[in-house]
Parts: sequence; structure tokens; C-alpha cells
Amino acid sequence: MATPSELVAETLGGSVRALAKLITLVENEMSGSTEALQKLYAQTGRAYTIGITGPPGSGKSTLTDKITREIRKKGFTVGVIAVDPTSPFSGGALLGDRVRMQEITSDEGVFVRSMATRGTLGGLSKATADTVKILDAFGKDFILIETVGVGQDEVDIVRTADSTLLISVPGLGDDIQALKAGIMEIGDLFVVNKADREGADRVVTELSLMLDLSPSRRDWRPPIIKTVGTLGTGIPELVEKIFAHRKFLEEGNDLKAKRNERAREEIIHLIEREISKYVQKMLKYDVNFEEVIDQVVARKQDPYSYARKVTEPFAQYYQIYKVDKVKPAKDKPTP
Amino acid sequence: MATPSELVAETLGGSVRALAKLITLVENEMSGSTEALQKLYAQTGRAYTIGITGPPGSGKSTLTDKITREIRKKGFTVGVIAVDPTSPFSGGALLGDRVRMQEITSDEGVFVRSMATRGTLGGLSKATADTVKILDAFGKDFILIETVGVGQDEVDIVRTADSTLLISVPGLGDDIQALKAGIMEIGDLFVVNKADREGADRVVTELSLMLDLSPSRRDWRPPIIKTVGTLGTGIPELVEKIFAHRKFLEEGNDLKAKRNERAREEIIHLIEREISKYVQKMLKYDVNFEEVIDQVVARKQDPYSYARKVTEPFAQYYQIYKVDKVKPAKDKPTP
Repeated sequence: MATPSELVAETLGGSVRALAKLITLVENEMSGSTEALQKLYAQTGRAYTIGITGPPGSGKSTLTDKITREIRKKGFTVGVIAVDPTSPFSGGALLGDRVRMQEITSDEGVFVRSMATRGTLGGLSKATADTVKILDAFGKDFILIETVGVGQDEVDIVRTADSTLLISVPGLGDDIQALKAGIMEIGDLFVVNKADREGADRVVTELSLMLDLSPSRRDWRPPIIKTVGTLGTGIPELVEKIFAHRKFLEEGNDLKAKRNERAREEIIHLIEREISKYVQKMLKYDVNFEEVIDQVVARKQDPYSYARKVTEPFAQYYQIYKVDKVKPAKDKPTP
Repeated sequence: MATPSELVAETLGGSVRALAKLITLVENEMSGSTEALQKLYAQTGRAYTIGITGPPGSGKSTLTDKITREIRKKGFTVGVIAVDPTSPFSGGALLGDRVRMQEITSDEGVFVRSMATRGTLGGLSKATADTVKILDAFGKDFILIETVGVGQDEVDIVRTADSTLLISVPGLGDDIQALKAGIMEIGDLFVVNKADREGADRVVTELSLMLDLSPSRRDWRPPIIKTVGTLGTGIPELVEKIFAHRKFLEEGNDLKAKRNERAREEIIHLIEREISKYVQKMLKYDVNFEEVIDQVVARKQDPYSYARKVTEPFAQYYQIYKVDKVKPAKDKPTP
């Protein structure tokens, strides 16, 4: 059994077997996983990430497959992270898609990984972000993150990509199947898949209208691309547009801004997770906690006051931290 | 404009207007909301909560409506919390349902509230739990929590209820539309809605088989009830079974165990949220944080080490706390 350090070294050396094991280690937050990620980190930041999301039945997996092949044709390597639905209701259809997806894994330039782990505090998004880093350090040029997009979590995951594709299909809902304002904003490219179906042009028109109404995004107007995933129709154009978006981001300051924002969110989540672990441990070993629970259930104590009491020392630390670190700015009110 | 204290007093005094305002205050975490909840808390713990979930299109809203009317017939008051889909893709159908649901709000014994707020750290589940408390303190005998059940968050919310109803319908998926093992476990009662459709008996049989295979739950075998929500068929039987489940929980030790578990989870989440707020504030006012982000993006520093460094004082506090509070048990390893 290889140690985490050995797995890192072997992954950086190009071993696919070590890569797979390292992802499992990190996904399950096994001992040594944080140290492994720390070691890898300097080797990351080179890959370009593409998020792909849309409602169930919009053909995301087939599109992901075809986009992967198209990018491979250009000579780049690809990592695919398929975020399986954490939804307990959304059925086993995705499993079949995954089996189809395996076809392209016989190509050595492609590595496919499914993610389904879900811890307590954003476990899935952390596992995905960590896997992106591992694939990045391994040397993949492009990393595709596909989510089923039924939950906010999945949308949050895909939204952190450099380019985000929103997939629609004709005939799924009344009008634009609820591609509401909130979700429109995360799309850098809009794909109308299954475009050989009736109503595809209407979907394009509606998307276009909604884009007209949504707040401007400086100089990038998200293109709308019609595809038929199963036939491969429109895929070369779609990939061209993805590359165009990348060029746009790189030429402006937008890629840096996007990645800074992602780093900010990631750091905050990591801190929250660290603290959450301490809290859980603390309460687990606190012999009084069971009594507190009884009192809360009996309404002799309220949970809000108790939570404040427990976090009081942290509040004090925050005060100290503030005095120590913060240059008071005149235009900023003290918190 | 009433103060939070006044809103609490008026809510406890029976003002529906104050009740609505108080929920808004708490949902948006406005100033004074925690104090309001602290004040209310002693008046809670009387209501019985019923969670209702199922896949989109299973007729949850209609069932919720009919269950509400049936419980009202028995002379009890009802609060309904409809957790709107945070799913960006799941369309506007629910809005229409909500409009229909408004019909029963002309009944003074019923209060209906939709929830859609979603903060960073379990905002929706906190808002729902807080609203349950407010409705409970207001004096509602039963509180129905309906979620669209497409995401894990929504399932987590509904799972905290005293009795949880899982809705299925014929013809939604291949077999039992992926009522997988994980989700089976949260159901205390299974409803096959739209039971006038073809295939209803097959769904009942499959559910029954799955229940045979799932781990035993002491003495409660979840009943399977066929309903046609739109016609009201099966609703009296369903409500009878809910009352039977309540009786079962109350006679055993299960209701206490369930509520203790809920209190435990709630306290942990409250502590995490408190700390998370401090962290966000701390980083917001830390003039070095932007620089750290730049270094992380430039791969000169890794986010994991930084997160550990920031949480180090909390780790120390945890050590002190441990020494102070924990009686070391011989059979427990130190964490």
C-alpha cells in the first residue's frame, strides 16, 4: 500500500493507477489527504476547466463525451468529472450514461471520474475542487465538470469553472423550462441540444431575448449554439466558441478575477470545514453535551444562547485578530 | 415599525400579521432575529411536524392541501411551510400550486408560508427550522413541511419532521423511479399518489418488496397508502395513518429520540453558522487576505496550509476545552 506522498510522486510522474488512488484518498478524506493536496498544489493552475450543466434529460453526458473527443482531436488531454446526482429521486439513468462514457476512457489522453460523495459541509464541492486540482497537477489540459444541475450545490460546483455551458433542450417545459434569471447569469455559453427536435428555434429565440434582458457582461455576449449530441452536429462550433471564450477571458482581466474569486470561496470553505471538524469533535467529547440537548428539548435552555456561549471564545479571538491585523479604513464601518 | 420584541409579543398574542412579519425578520436574519427566537423558544415543542416530499410531478402540493383540510376537520390548526425549489431548473409549476394552496389560507386556522431563501451555510434549512418554531410558538397544532425533494438539502429538511411522507406516482420512471435505499429509510409513510393511473398496484408491490428488504425499524412498518390527491381519495386513511405513527412514536421512546437528534443537529449547525460569520467578518477586514488570495492563485501559497494557520487558535481553544470538560473514558481513543 503506497503512502500519500508516494501516490503524489507517482501521480506527478504520470501513473494513472496512482492518480485514481489519490482521488479516492482525497474524496474520502482519508489520513494524509490534506498533506497530499498541499504537495500537489504548486503543480496546479495550468488546466482550463469547463462546467457543463442542464436539466435531467438534456443530454449532458453525450455532449460531454463529444466535447471530450473534439478537444482530443486538437491534441489536448482531458479529465472528466461527472458529478452524480445527490438527488435521491433522479434515478439511475446517469449510470447508463456513465457506461457509455467509459468508451472514451480507452483513450489514454482521457481520464473519467464520477463523484457522488457527500459529506456534511459541502463535501461534494470540496471533493470536486480537489479532484480538479489532482487532474490539473497530473497534467490534463482541459477538465470538464458535468453536473446534473438539479440542485443548487451542483450549480455552485459547475459555476466555479472557467467556462460554464448551460444546456437546454426543446420541449422540456412550458416556455424556456425555467432558465430563470439566476441561472442565466452563470452561463458563458448556451447550448440548445437535441436541436433536431421541434421547437429548437423557439428555444434559441427565447434564450436570445432573455440574454437581451439580463445585465450586460462587459464585452462577452454568451453565444447560443445548436447541437445534436448523438449525431455530433454542432460540436466543432461549440468547442470553437469555448476556445473563443477562453481567449476572451485571458485577454482581459477576467480569468484572473474569476480564479481569485474561486480561491477566495475555497479558502473560506476550507476554514469553515476545519472549524466544523473541531466543533464536532469538541461536542463529541463533551460529557455535558447530551445534558444540554436534553435541556434544549425540554425547553429549559434555548439552542441559540448555547451556540453563542460555545462560540464566545472564538468571538474574543476575532476581536484580538481584528486589532492585530486590521488597519482601520476611514470609509469602512467597524463590523 | 414594530421592534422584534414587539413582534414576538404580538405573535404569541395571536396576531397573524405579526407572525408573518416575524417569519420575514428571521428568514432574512435581520437584526434582532436571534433574540426573537430566543424569546420564543420556551413556547415551542408542542406542534407535531409532518414532512412531505417526492419527485417533481408527484402531486405534493395537492396532497398537502388535502391533508391540511382533513386535519382541520378534526379541529386542529395547521401551519404549512412550502420549501420552494432552490433548483434553478425545475420550473414555475410550483408557483401555480402555491396559488391553488392560497385557497385554504382563507381558513383562519391555516397559515401558509413559502420558503426560498438560501444563504451560504444551510440558510434554507435554518430558515425552515426557525419558521417551524415560530409557527409552533404561535400555537399551530400541526406543521406541514413540503419540499420538492430534488436535492439533498430539501430531503434533509423534510427528514427532520416527526413523520415523513414519501410520495410516489405510477409511470414516472422505469421501475420504482429510483426510490433508492437511502431515501427509503427516511419515509415513515409511503404514499402512492395518482393511484387511478395505470401501474399504481405495481408501484405498491415494488415499495412493499423494498420495505421487506430494507433494515427493520423496530416495530413500525411504514404503511403504503394509495391516494388520488385531486379527488381526495385515500386522504382520510392517510391522515389516520399519520396519527397512528404519531401514537407509535409517543408510546415508545422514539419521539424523544427523534427530537433529541434534531436538537443535536440544530445546535451543531448553529455553532457552525456563528463561527462562519466570524470568519467571514474576520477575512473581510483583514487587509492581508487579498494578498493571500493572490499568492494562492499564483501558487506561492497553498489554501490548505493557510486555512490551518487561520484555524490554529481555534484548535488551541479546542485543546483547552477538551482538558477542561472531558472526562477521559477508557474505551474512547483521544481524538
